[in-house]
Amino acid sequence: MLLKNIEELKNQIKQWKKDGLTVGLVPTMGALHDGHLSLIKKSVATCDKTVVSDFVNPTQFCPGEDLDKYPRTLDADVKLCEENGVDIVFAPSPEEMYGTDTRRSNDFLTYVVPPFFYTNKLCGKTRVGHFDGVCTVVLKLFNIVQPDYAFFGQKDAQQLVVIKKMVKDLNVPVEVVPCPIIREDSGLALSSRNKYLSDEGKENALVLSKILKNIKTLYKKGITDIDALKETAFSFLTAAHELEYLEFVDKTDLEDKKSADDETLVLIALRTDGVRLIDNCILGEE
Amino acid sequence: MLLKNIEELKNQIKQWKKDGLTVGLVPTMGALHDGHLSLIKKSVATCDKTVVSDFVNPTQFCPGEDLDKYPRTLDADVKLCEENGVDIVFAPSPEEMYGTDTRRSNDFLTYVVPPFFYTNKLCGKTRVGHFDGVCTVVLKLFNIVQPDYAFFGQKDAQQLVVIKKMVKDLNVPVEVVPCPIIREDSGLALSSRNKYLSDEGKENALVLSKILKNIKTLYKKGITDIDALKETAFSFLTAAHELEYLEFVDKTDLEDKKSADDETLVLIALRTDGVRLIDNCILGEE
Repeated sequence: MLLKNIEELKNQIKQWKKDGLTVGLVPTMGALHDGHLSLIKKSVATCDKTVVSDFVNPTQFCPGEDLDKYPRTLDADVKLCEENGVDIVFAPSPEEMYGTDTRRSNDFLTYVVPPFFYTNKLCGKTRVGHFDGVCTVVLKLFNIVQPDYAFFGQKDAQQLVVIKKMVKDLNVPVEVVPCPIIREDSGLALSSRNKYLSDEGKENALVLSKILKNIKTLYKKGITDIDALKETAFSFLTAAHELEYLEFVDKTDLEDKKSADDETLVLIALRTDGVRLIDNCILGEE
Repeated sequence: MLLKNIEELKNQIKQWKKDGLTVGLVPTMGALHDGHLSLIKKSVATCDKTVVSDFVNPTQFCPGEDLDKYPRTLDADVKLCEENGVDIVFAPSPEEMYGTDTRRSNDFLTYVVPPFFYTNKLCGKTRVGHFDGVCTVVLKLFNIVQPDYAFFGQKDAQQLVVIKKMVKDLNVPVEVVPCPIIREDSGLALSSRNKYLSDEGKENALVLSKILKNIKTLYKKGITDIDALKETAFSFLTAAHELEYLEFVDKTDLEDKKSADDETLVLIALRTDGVRLIDNCILGEE
């Protein structure tokens, strides 16, 4: 069932709660792919009822980013959800979520602001205010849906850490369930932004997973010096790649690591073919 | 029943919810007086169960403010609550609420930040960051207690507006119930900070309510020019008073009024006897 109205959704949820049913939420910006599908399947398997939110959230895009161009495929999204046991697809308009006043800055709206220590690095360095927008819309969705479980992909690793921190700091009564990255056979991590890539761009995009795989292999062989591990990445990069960052941080609080260990989260972001792509891995995990 | 532990409280609340009972929350910083008591009575009359939180929240005090000196009277508070039908007094330690890390700035904790338009004026002008601390702790309490209703005094008028705005912006599933200011026979609005006043200071403190009463009387007689209304206030002030502000704003969004009307919230803040006091009235209300 497709709902666009907050009150209608809340009424449905209220009924479910009254019936003692558990609710899972899969927050998405739509353009659903097999990565999202893995979250959806996990929610459907875990919870009595599953809500998928399908909302391209304007407040998490920075000026000059791809808000207008971001892929929107609502009909296909709804079909995929229905085929996979989702109970409600919630696809509100920006006005339904933020009101008709177009002034959506922190001058006029309450924001949830995650700690600078978590956001002044990695994607937060170039995407200023991005995680404020993410936390704000996620908390709004949590308050509207009141889910028992919410499912997030490890693909957006910094986002996952920031949301877990928000949930802890604000005592949000939701259990965050992290879900592994889904990859094409080539190794490319699934992303809605892959749709922007040409065939050549897609080929160039393979370096992200190749670099991470190589670093993990070397780490398993005993190399823990971060400079040495970083150095190996450069043999993969060509003139077609514009590296934004390659960082080694703690998987829980994003503090820079002095040397690699099992708790180390390795994150990479780069531009190729005009598209910004990210990927990551945790060294101690398979 | 006095509880200091979040998990214990949540377990009790869960049981109440399972039994279909409604829950009221009265958030306080303790040092309870008849103003708080009026909120408590309203909650007990409205809801099946009432929780009073009793927590001097460090994150809403600015450097140099009276955090250490703020009156703490937990035993008397618990007694008053028990005599008046409160089910739980929740009095956590700062560590229980914010963890043992003493770094509680926005570098290390997630904050709820109300819009600048609402906080860059009135009390927010001198108490920088105060309303961030207020919104953050109130949202935490909302998430812990999950009340159906939360009761706030009109005494802290800017706080009430800011919290209503937060609830709306973040879709918080709580109904905020504003409660009228309670006054001594002298007109003095009740406040925990009145305890700081000497007898002479208490006498000097009467000007707040006198000024507001006079402004309302003149408004009822047809005077709507704000400069003229403000001017009349000065005849009440002596060398013992240090006026911080006297403002006329919209009662819903705190926008400056061009002329007085029924929706106008008049707020005053001043120091006397070394104590900072606030008071307010809405011109269209009795």
